[in-house]
Amino acid sequence: MHAQKKFLIKIAYHGKSFAGWQTQHNGLAIQTLIEEKLKIFLKHPVTVIGSGRTDAGVHALAQSAHFETDNSIDAQTILFKLNQLLPGSIRILEIKEVPLSFHARFDVIKKTYRYQIFNEKVLNPFDFQTHWHIPYLLDKNQMTQALSKLIGTHDFKAFAAKNTQGVASVDSIRHLEAFDMICDGPYLYFELTSKGFLYKMVRNLVGCVIEIGLGKKNLSVIDKALQSGDRSLVGATAPPEGLFLKEVIY
Amino acid sequence: MHAQKKFLIKIAYHGKSFAGWQTQHNGLAIQTLIEEKLKIFLKHPVTVIGSGRTDAGVHALAQSAHFETDNSIDAQTILFKLNQLLPGSIRILEIKEVPLSFHARFDVIKKTYRYQIFNEKVLNPFDFQTHWHIPYLLDKNQMTQALSKLIGTHDFKAFAAKNTQGVASVDSIRHLEAFDMICDGPYLYFELTSKGFLYKMVRNLVGCVIEIGLGKKNLSVIDKALQSGDRSLVGATAPPEGLFLKEVIY
Repeated sequence: MHAQKKFLIKIAYHGKSFAGWQTQHNGLAIQTLIEEKLKIFLKHPVTVIGSGRTDAGVHALAQSAHFETDNSIDAQTILFKLNQLLPGSIRILEIKEVPLSFHARFDVIKKTYRYQIFNEKVLNPFDFQTHWHIPYLLDKNQMTQALSKLIGTHDFKAFAAKNTQGVASVDSIRHLEAFDMICDGPYLYFELTSKGFLYKMVRNLVGCVIEIGLGKKNLSVIDKALQSGDRSLVGATAPPEGLFLKEVIY
Repeated sequence: MHAQKKFLIKIAYHGKSFAGWQTQHNGLAIQTLIEEKLKIFLKHPVTVIGSGRTDAGVHALAQSAHFETDNSIDAQTILFKLNQLLPGSIRILEIKEVPLSFHARFDVIKKTYRYQIFNEKVLNPFDFQTHWHIPYLLDKNQMTQALSKLIGTHDFKAFAAKNTQGVASVDSIRHLEAFDMICDGPYLYFELTSKGFLYKMVRNLVGCVIEIGLGKKNLSVIDKALQSGDRSLVGATAPPEGLFLKEVIY
């Protein structure tokens, strides 16, 4: 019997073919697939704990997760074997041993999400699975003003998923540390950083800012939504294919 | 009855989900799919003639093709309707009317192909369908020398597909105008330009240059292959997912 060891892995994945990080309904979850592959060579059942869930179709540039084993195998061999067994749409980027007290979800200091948009008429076939296609003119001045209203500490209840709206006990006050917009020709990126996000908060924030950019909603909707917590003011949720979990800071 | 008109379209496609430009065996061909969609709104059967075939899994940044119609619909409406009906993995980039005498295959002056390689340990999940992953050290000096031996007018019989080897009547002399290597961090691109390529010639040339870069074959294999026409000297064909038809010049 060897000593118990804990490993932290950084994982990139293309969300298109998966039912999300963790299985909720049908379909293949990324977490489940990594657990299955680890079991093959660690020779015991493994539980992989991620920094948090990502929804079906959402991508990761660097998700983080931990697992334990008493197998004496070294870290680099685990990384090599996992990448050999996993499909090319999931890659283990890094692995390191961490103290047994470490926890991939509870020890998160902050996370950064990236949201990718393509803002011209024809979206090329190499970008359509990783960008939200908006072929209409966007008022970037209005959008910049929207971002500055959203940055900071607010009750983001109006930007949480519909099914969490009735839950009065859920604390929906969050500190949005950064909400940046980066323009690069037809490409438009948002980057959002916070210690914690409500469920679907990133996609609802992006959806709202885009509706303001399209002139479908007035800038004043943000103050009203933050004050009232009324989800119906905010507009449509941005689609999953543009969203990336970019970084998890411990 | 309206006058007959001919249109030239530029098409980009992600080859992963298709059986190639033109159906040869089973599976969905890109040409067939465009013909089906055109028929829906042109209200008559349409034949789409490409600049040439691309194999299953091969991509296009700009394939060219023509078709005829006596429907009075204007060019921009055709482009818009086609992109509405086609999957996101096929995009019509441009359309223009051409003289009835124009032919998308016979009028080609030259073509450029691009071949994409990723040359580091872990290939990220957003590039694995569009790059050949080579996680080993490549001798780029040897590869540059290989390219300069291949540029120019040669009998490329040794670099043609195996099933064309026995065909004595096939003229296999071609003029390779350019064979460039572009290095960009872990990314490595080849660009090849010629009036005409033999079947699988690009992937066989790239496969040979890579085997020289890996030290599996000596540089002298190129002179021997060009002189003898012996396919067995050349080595493995590079995989289709790295190959892009980049441009067709008329």
